[in-house]
Amino acid sequence: MSAPVGDIGLIGLAVMGQNLILNAADHGYTVVAFNRTVSKVDHFLENEAKGKSIVGAHSIEELCAKLKKPRRIILLVKAGKAVDDFIDLLIPHLEAGDIIIDGGNSHFPDSNRRTKELADKGLLFVGSGVSGGEEGARYGPSLMPGGNEAAWPAIKNIFQDISAKTDGEPCCDWVGDEGAGHFVKMVHNGIEYGDMQLICEAYDILKRGAGFTDKEIGDVFSQWNKGVLDSFLIEITRDILYYNDEDGTPLVEKILDRAGQKGTGKWTAINALDLGMPVTLIGEAVFARCLSAIKEERVAASKVLPGPSPAFNGDKKEFVDQLEQALYASKIISYAQGFMLIREAGKEYGWKLNNPAIALMWRGGCIIRSVFLGEITRAYRKNPDLENLLFDDFFKAAITKAQDSWRQVVAKAVIWGIPTPAFTTALSFYDGYRSARLPANLLQAQRDYFGAHTFHVLPEFVSDKYPANTDIHINWTGRGGNVSASTYLA
Amino acid sequence: MSAPVGDIGLIGLAVMGQNLILNAADHGYTVVAFNRTVSKVDHFLENEAKGKSIVGAHSIEELCAKLKKPRRIILLVKAGKAVDDFIDLLIPHLEAGDIIIDGGNSHFPDSNRRTKELADKGLLFVGSGVSGGEEGARYGPSLMPGGNEAAWPAIKNIFQDISAKTDGEPCCDWVGDEGAGHFVKMVHNGIEYGDMQLICEAYDILKRGAGFTDKEIGDVFSQWNKGVLDSFLIEITRDILYYNDEDGTPLVEKILDRAGQKGTGKWTAINALDLGMPVTLIGEAVFARCLSAIKEERVAASKVLPGPSPAFNGDKKEFVDQLEQALYASKIISYAQGFMLIREAGKEYGWKLNNPAIALMWRGGCIIRSVFLGEITRAYRKNPDLENLLFDDFFKAAITKAQDSWRQVVAKAVIWGIPTPAFTTALSFYDGYRSARLPANLLQAQRDYFGAHTFHVLPEFVSDKYPANTDIHINWTGRGGNVSASTYLA
Repeated sequence: MSAPVGDIGLIGLAVMGQNLILNAADHGYTVVAFNRTVSKVDHFLENEAKGKSIVGAHSIEELCAKLKKPRRIILLVKAGKAVDDFIDLLIPHLEAGDIIIDGGNSHFPDSNRRTKELADKGLLFVGSGVSGGEEGARYGPSLMPGGNEAAWPAIKNIFQDISAKTDGEPCCDWVGDEGAGHFVKMVHNGIEYGDMQLICEAYDILKRGAGFTDKEIGDVFSQWNKGVLDSFLIEITRDILYYNDEDGTPLVEKILDRAGQKGTGKWTAINALDLGMPVTLIGEAVFARCLSAIKEERVAASKVLPGPSPAFNGDKKEFVDQLEQALYASKIISYAQGFMLIREAGKEYGWKLNNPAIALMWRGGCIIRSVFLGEITRAYRKNPDLENLLFDDFFKAAITKAQDSWRQVVAKAVIWGIPTPAFTTALSFYDGYRSARLPANLLQAQRDYFGAHTFHVLPEFVSDKYPANTDIHINWTGRGGNVSASTYLA
Repeated sequence: MSAPVGDIGLIGLAVMGQNLILNAADHGYTVVAFNRTVSKVDHFLENEAKGKSIVGAHSIEELCAKLKKPRRIILLVKAGKAVDDFIDLLIPHLEAGDIIIDGGNSHFPDSNRRTKELADKGLLFVGSGVSGGEEGARYGPSLMPGGNEAAWPAIKNIFQDISAKTDGEPCCDWVGDEGAGHFVKMVHNGIEYGDMQLICEAYDILKRGAGFTDKEIGDVFSQWNKGVLDSFLIEITRDILYYNDEDGTPLVEKILDRAGQKGTGKWTAINALDLGMPVTLIGEAVFARCLSAIKEERVAASKVLPGPSPAFNGDKKEFVDQLEQALYASKIISYAQGFMLIREAGKEYGWKLNNPAIALMWRGGCIIRSVFLGEITRAYRKNPDLENLLFDDFFKAAITKAQDSWRQVVAKAVIWGIPTPAFTTALSFYDGYRSARLPANLLQAQRDYFGAHTFHVLPEFVSDKYPANTDIHINWTGRGGNVSASTYLA
């Protein structure tokens, strides 16, 4: 066997894997390609990879033999068992200091575990978020690597070379320990769910609410893409709405309105519940996909459950501007919630996470890339310990400016009968977040009434009768007992 | 040691345990009481239990020796490890056919496991939901037993005797296999979270939105408790709002507005995400508690984030009636979502669940007991396979009648800046559920655009070009590749 030539190896030749290989080859790296179904390797070499610095391997052994040391191997296979299987297959052919990079959408606890397991064997594990879809993988993805930091110097150049660039900076930096890279990618995907849901709601408000044609809605998105909403998802929405089928009608109107949700969006929502962070917009976005999935039931319901008939008589341009502000404000809330989750995860899992770097990694290359993320990067560079995005002057001013339009649009959707779970939850979050006092005092009274769960008093009512930080139980009716509940058995 | 006298044993003398024992004693059963901290047993015997058919045990061995066979032992200890620990302690002193009943808020997968583990040892495990708080436990709780059905004949009489009664029927019946009892209790608690959040939002709308005093709001709840909202939680809310502290001001206004959420409400929301069911109202209720918990951040935000100043000039009585309808409609949605989850769980876990019995078990005794649940019982008795509560004539008519008021109230709250995450998500769900077409067609187009995730077409557009049930990928820009994604790597 000839001397090792490969700078990096990649396992898994689905669309993302193929495109990442081509991307790395474009940057002068020699890539060794392998796939479980080996015929795919040959097909790739004879077609897309032809004439490029890409060599094939027909076995794991050959893959490892063809790589320079320390070996750097990217797995782009289905998250879960397949990752562990390939790691087990690789281990016998690796040496201390070699690096296994999982570029799939693995769940971050798995990456925590793999980092430790491989470290015990002297191997370096990296769990890296990869975002950008097929286009991103091909021409510059957002890369979010975390895991064993000893691997970073050996992969930094290639990772930053192949990643997207924004204003001359690579959209790739070291995220943090263990599964931090996959965690941040998970939140990215959750935010992506939220952005997509917000766009769908805006489209629905314009279509079913205000009676716009798809062409008119395409024009709206085209206009928005030149303003504060300038982003990849707004841009492709414009393209989609303009895309006519051969019969001259918009193809999007022929597509079945049923979306899947078994993935990272769901994980983000579950993690938010586990960490006790109110990441409501992503939660609603995931549930909106669940509701879309029960199409037959909706069709049946549409025949028996009545609703209003929207009637729009206002100024179209004014309404479009209001809707832009509503979408922008909702988006600010979604990102504020996402960063709240990241902040809490850092505390909970003991990871040092770099907020400005995370925002910058999302600034370009990935699905949620936007001008907006440049502002978030700026906000966190100005104050890396910013408690909440809403406390940054720029975002505070933006949401202050937007809020009247936001309220008008949401109120209209509610009256028109257009479902806007993401817009409304964002507004409820904003109004709750800016409430020094929420009605949870009543809730605590209820819990104490029926379950003796006790309550605390507000700071301004602390007294001898109601000492600070003391559990107080009141016999609200005179019929309850005097025993406090030690567990919540409501 | 004397001959066994105990009809049933109970471990765990916190408030719920003590009250269940007193309840069973009132019904003529001899109860053997045990507690890990044994001094609590003596204190209980000398005080609350004095003169009743209650005997103490100072060890697990003594507890088991004092029970008639088959032994029936209820655990009312903290969910989790304590349950397994006590089961391990009990096993050496039990014989085939003896019954261990876990009456705590255990997570249903644990009850699945325990049912199997004890069956392997010839023992019968029952996981039973117990609801009603301290009052319910004392005078008649709602009991939701599931697990090893062979235990049911031996516990049916005592369970139905001590349970609440509604219209002469016990609020206790066999729920189903394995962890089905704890699953149904979990959903009950989730719905309880939702009901409490809805009430808090109504209170907040009246207080901060329409400027009502607590006394006036108490009057509203008093009035509502005579109508369609007649329920335990409305009743206690009335009591709470009427309860003045010694200084003559409402005590509820002194209570800290910070609520906990680490429990069954969270599990319900996570299970909904896992099963892909849009149980949005419980999700928002859990997140609302999370938001309440970050009090310091809210106080800081209240100083810098602006909002509107509510101004109410309308007719108070008319507004209260509208709000009643909004609360009622939102509640219908929450229960419809809860039963969607139960239905899906039955399918997913292979449990035969009895919907009318579940509604009846919740009709009385428990925290969510209400006249409303009588209507749900009636709906499921009429059609046990009812696909969705909203398809029942009664609820269809109720929501049809309510919806205009519902929209008006939500629109007002949105304009006023009062956070109403539960009201709004309920309305969004209703509008989404009755939509034959949701905007998820655009979402599927986006996913195909950036990730080659493919889409299906609507049934009416199935053709030779777009065959039924076929994954279609479009090159939306001409720049993408021709490879479909095999995994979701957005």
